[in-house]
Amino acid sequence: MRIVVLGDVVGRVGRQAIQTHLPRLVERWSLDFVVVNGENAAGGFGISEEIAQEILDAGADCITTGNHVWDQREALVFIERQPRMLRPINFPPGTPGHGAAMFTARNGARILVANVMGRIFMDPLDDPIRPLEAALDVHRLGSEVDAAIVDIHAEATSEKQVFGHMLDGRVSIVVGTHTHCPTADHRVLPGGTAFITDLGMCGAYDGVIGMDKEEPVRRMIERVPGQRITPATGPATICGIAVETDDSTGLAKWIVPIRMGGVLHEAGPSEWG
Amino acid sequence: MRIVVLGDVVGRVGRQAIQTHLPRLVERWSLDFVVVNGENAAGGFGISEEIAQEILDAGADCITTGNHVWDQREALVFIERQPRMLRPINFPPGTPGHGAAMFTARNGARILVANVMGRIFMDPLDDPIRPLEAALDVHRLGSEVDAAIVDIHAEATSEKQVFGHMLDGRVSIVVGTHTHCPTADHRVLPGGTAFITDLGMCGAYDGVIGMDKEEPVRRMIERVPGQRITPATGPATICGIAVETDDSTGLAKWIVPIRMGGVLHEAGPSEWG
Amino acid sequence: MRIVVLGDVVGRVGRQAIQTHLPRLVERWSLDFVVVNGENAAGGFGISEEIAQEILDAGADCITTGNHVWDQREALVFIERQPRMLRPINFPPGTPGHGAAMFTARNGARILVANVMGRIFMDPLDDPIRPLEAALDVHRLGSEVDAAIVDIHAEATSEKQVFGHMLDGRVSIVVGTHTHCPTADHRVLPGGTAFITDLGMCGAYDGVIGMDKEEPVRRMIERVPGQRITPATGPATICGIAVETDDSTGLAKWIVPIRMGGVLHEAGPSEWG
Amino acid sequence: MRIVVLGDVVGRVGRQAIQTHLPRLVERWSLDFVVVNGENAAGGFGISEEIAQEILDAGADCITTGNHVWDQREALVFIERQPRMLRPINFPPGTPGHGAAMFTARNGARILVANVMGRIFMDPLDDPIRPLEAALDVHRLGSEVDAAIVDIHAEATSEKQVFGHMLDGRVSIVVGTHTHCPTADHRVLPGGTAFITDLGMCGAYDGVIGMDKEEPVRRMIERVPGQRITPATGPATICGIAVETDDSTGLAKWIVPIRMGGVLHEAGPSEWG
Ligand SMILES: [Fe+2]
Ligand SMILES: [Fe+2]
Ligand SMILES: [Fe+2]
Ligand SMILES: [Fe+2]
Ligand SMILES: [Fe+2]
Ligand SMILES: [Fe+2]
Ligand SMILES: [Fe+2]
Ligand SMILES: [Fe+2]
Repeated sequence: MRIVVLGDVVGRVGRQAIQTHLPRLVERWSLDFVVVNGENAAGGFGISEEIAQEILDAGADCITTGNHVWDQREALVFIERQPRMLRPINFPPGTPGHGAAMFTARNGARILVANVMGRIFMDPLDDPIRPLEAALDVHRLGSEVDAAIVDIHAEATSEKQVFGHMLDGRVSIVVGTHTHCPTADHRVLPGGTAFITDLGMCGAYDGVIGMDKEEPVRRMIERVPGQRITPATGPATICGIAVETDDSTGLAKWIVPIRMGGVLHEAGPSEWG
Repeated sequence: MRIVVLGDVVGRVGRQAIQTHLPRLVERWSLDFVVVNGENAAGGFGISEEIAQEILDAGADCITTGNHVWDQREALVFIERQPRMLRPINFPPGTPGHGAAMFTARNGARILVANVMGRIFMDPLDDPIRPLEAALDVHRLGSEVDAAIVDIHAEATSEKQVFGHMLDGRVSIVVGTHTHCPTADHRVLPGGTAFITDLGMCGAYDGVIGMDKEEPVRRMIERVPGQRITPATGPATICGIAVETDDSTGLAKWIVPIRMGGVLHEAGPSEWG
Repeated sequence: MRIVVLGDVVGRVGRQAIQTHLPRLVERWSLDFVVVNGENAAGGFGISEEIAQEILDAGADCITTGNHVWDQREALVFIERQPRMLRPINFPPGTPGHGAAMFTARNGARILVANVMGRIFMDPLDDPIRPLEAALDVHRLGSEVDAAIVDIHAEATSEKQVFGHMLDGRVSIVVGTHTHCPTADHRVLPGGTAFITDLGMCGAYDGVIGMDKEEPVRRMIERVPGQRITPATGPATICGIAVETDDSTGLAKWIVPIRMGGVLHEAGPSEWG
Repeated sequence: MRIVVLGDVVGRVGRQAIQTHLPRLVERWSLDFVVVNGENAAGGFGISEEIAQEILDAGADCITTGNHVWDQREALVFIERQPRMLRPINFPPGTPGHGAAMFTARNGARILVANVMGRIFMDPLDDPIRPLEAALDVHRLGSEVDAAIVDIHAEATSEKQVFGHMLDGRVSIVVGTHTHCPTADHRVLPGGTAFITDLGMCGAYDGVIGMDKEEPVRRMIERVPGQRITPATGPATICGIAVETDDSTGLAKWIVPIRMGGVLHEAGPSEWG
């Protein structure tokens, strides 16, 4: 099965990157399933119902999020009627939305997607491991599900790597998100799980984590507040990974980074033509 | 000029990676100058005088460090007689060692190296920008120095990217270190400075930031202390960047990632043969 | 009912303070129940089985703890055979020990004690509220239990005050611990719960949170590691609160601070003679 | 000399507390000098020029601040024409305002006030110690100045206690601010400096650090954003300390807490009638 996962969409440029590239790639690569992290799609902060729909219309089958999920308060409402959008699984019981859900891929395969939030250098939240394990227990890879994808939204590389190793052999893909900077450590772990510490973001890379660089630079020097921080402009890049999974085991055959458009070194799966 | 900068050396495997690869690369690529971050070289925590010498003997011209610099207490002493080892510039005045120093490259060129520490999600330390600017003021690129290299040792991608933009056009190279995970955003910034958010580490990548994965995974699940955390074993990888600078301006002509040995996707500068 | 709760016992001086004052006060005030936080009793870091017994022998009916609970690894073992010692309730299921337990007071009353850990500026841990609410649900004040005491071990004043208000009218006493500095905001909240943001510590106050001041002062100036940080010596102070509860409702009639011995302004319940 | 220092004024209720009590106390106690921390005076967030004037008119001779100093952006402007308001000394050079200044007391005495910010659990800022020492060097207690007062605005009790010990015998008074909760550890340190870990706040204590309790309590349970957090209403309390200094040495003769109005246990200097 052919799966693509793209990192945090940041603002208008990030949405443009998705619009420009995703529909074409879905077709060209005959993608079976696409996940996009949308937590910064609305001006860098959160996501609106309209923007969520826009990302789905461009070819995403599932939208994951992270610490910015509720920045647009309407997300607390519309997530209940938008089953394709997830919020981190480790919010307290009763929180609107879901942190894991089953999807049907274009090829009819059954896919579990789970979205968890890390806790190192981040706001206090519940243990992500127990609810994730509960979801994996009832959706076993290779029997109940054909693929399982985990988006661990976290700051620390150590925490994301722990999730990779902890889940190795039990899910198809573990991707980190949140730092908005793609890492180059993508690989298939010993047990068969495709892993990358961070997908990077979809947006303008000539900035500071997707935001215009002028104010962040000034603020780090002067240490007093000033202008609002707004998304950077400039060439639109998409960033993420392409994974081919084994249809019988659900494990990964290979993982290749995707970086298209803009200032980064271009990359993509030559395997898919 | 041909410059290589390698990320945090972690433990015995990291030192092996240096021993195995660096002498050969210095010769094969006719390197003019090599910087290696050595803050985790001694069992993952700090650096001893003997190990520092070992890294220099393998071909490093300068060793940078970071938050772990004093983990081996002897570093507070031997750094005073080892001018090739730097500690972050933003320790208080009176701290042993230096945060910036001038070096002579193999080709006779004058090179400034500065080591600064970030402050987001890290222990309180002084402002890194003012002492860094002071060093750059008296060592201007293209006049007083032929190349200038800054190692910003920091957790947050945003902070490292701010340093890249802030210094763009004024130094040859800005590299981030500390997360032990190589990023894929290496590029020459608009002003001519080669930049990467994090070099990654030299060590065993089948672990958690270079350390054996078993205890970190258990600890994240059980949340109680247990065994000591020790460096991972397994294939030894070096990680970093190769940069060709312009001899007249000191700015970067190109930047290419280096990843050799072990489980990561291999990379290196084909330009140098 | 007459209840005394004392804050974090720090090192030898803290244990001396307990030995010197507690047996006498139990008798003089005819105390029904005594809780002591013991997380720093062993040299400032953790608690041993022997020391736990020593504190119980001095008159404590229950020992609470906090983030330092496992600093002496033996605590992971002996807590299983020491039902009078609690660890924070929000460790993962399966963690040795308990976070809440029922006790019988000297007067035969049934007392619930719960120990929870805050999460602001502290290591990641599970939600403390849900397990605490579960404990309170089955041990209702005024019906199933005659008194209920909650030790919220936390850094931020805001988090501890939230617990006070959240539990107001449902437990007898909410005390904060961890900062090792007594607060002066002790009072009975509108719903009848006695509250104080922090009990302070039992130990030597002419130091830095109970530890010898020389090294912490030097370290804050020089920012490099040096000597070990060890408990302060000097006059031994106990710090905490005295609360008289209503036997029918279990709510607090009054709360008075206790500060005896050493350099602080002395305080104690004149109501008890 | 008779000095009063009051903690963070929070919102309208805090300002009312100042208006109600301060003019009366200045007269009744024949105060020579009054310092008030005003960082939360404007709706809990920052301070406006008008409000600063209001606090000065009520009897304050100097207003100190903290991490909230710039929440009302106008403070960046008006602080330049308001020499009686300080901002923390450890902002970078070039920051509007001053972190230390000389004042003339009602009795003609020369008084140095310095405002420093801690760094543990707080945003990165420069070293507070070196600029503070520089100010103390040129304004020596007992020779150049008749009294010296330091407001250390910090979260951690340890950091504030380090400042107390570090300055003991060299300044008249060290007070902590920021936690909005008065501590009960006020005392004259061995060297003659009056010290308290935190003054507490001026405002409504039936809340969470001066803010209405409903939303903070809900947010800690539900972990999703909701209503704005606004200052609590209810009885207005002032909190701080009264210190009598020795006119020849400038050191403290005694320190007594002030808590007046509202829900806290009342306290004040009986020595002054
Ligand atoms: Fe993001
Ligand atoms: Fe995020
Ligand atoms: Fe490192
Ligand atoms: Fe580091
Ligand atoms: Fe403690
Ligand atoms: Fe603690
Ligand atoms: Fe405040
Ligand atoms: Fe503050």
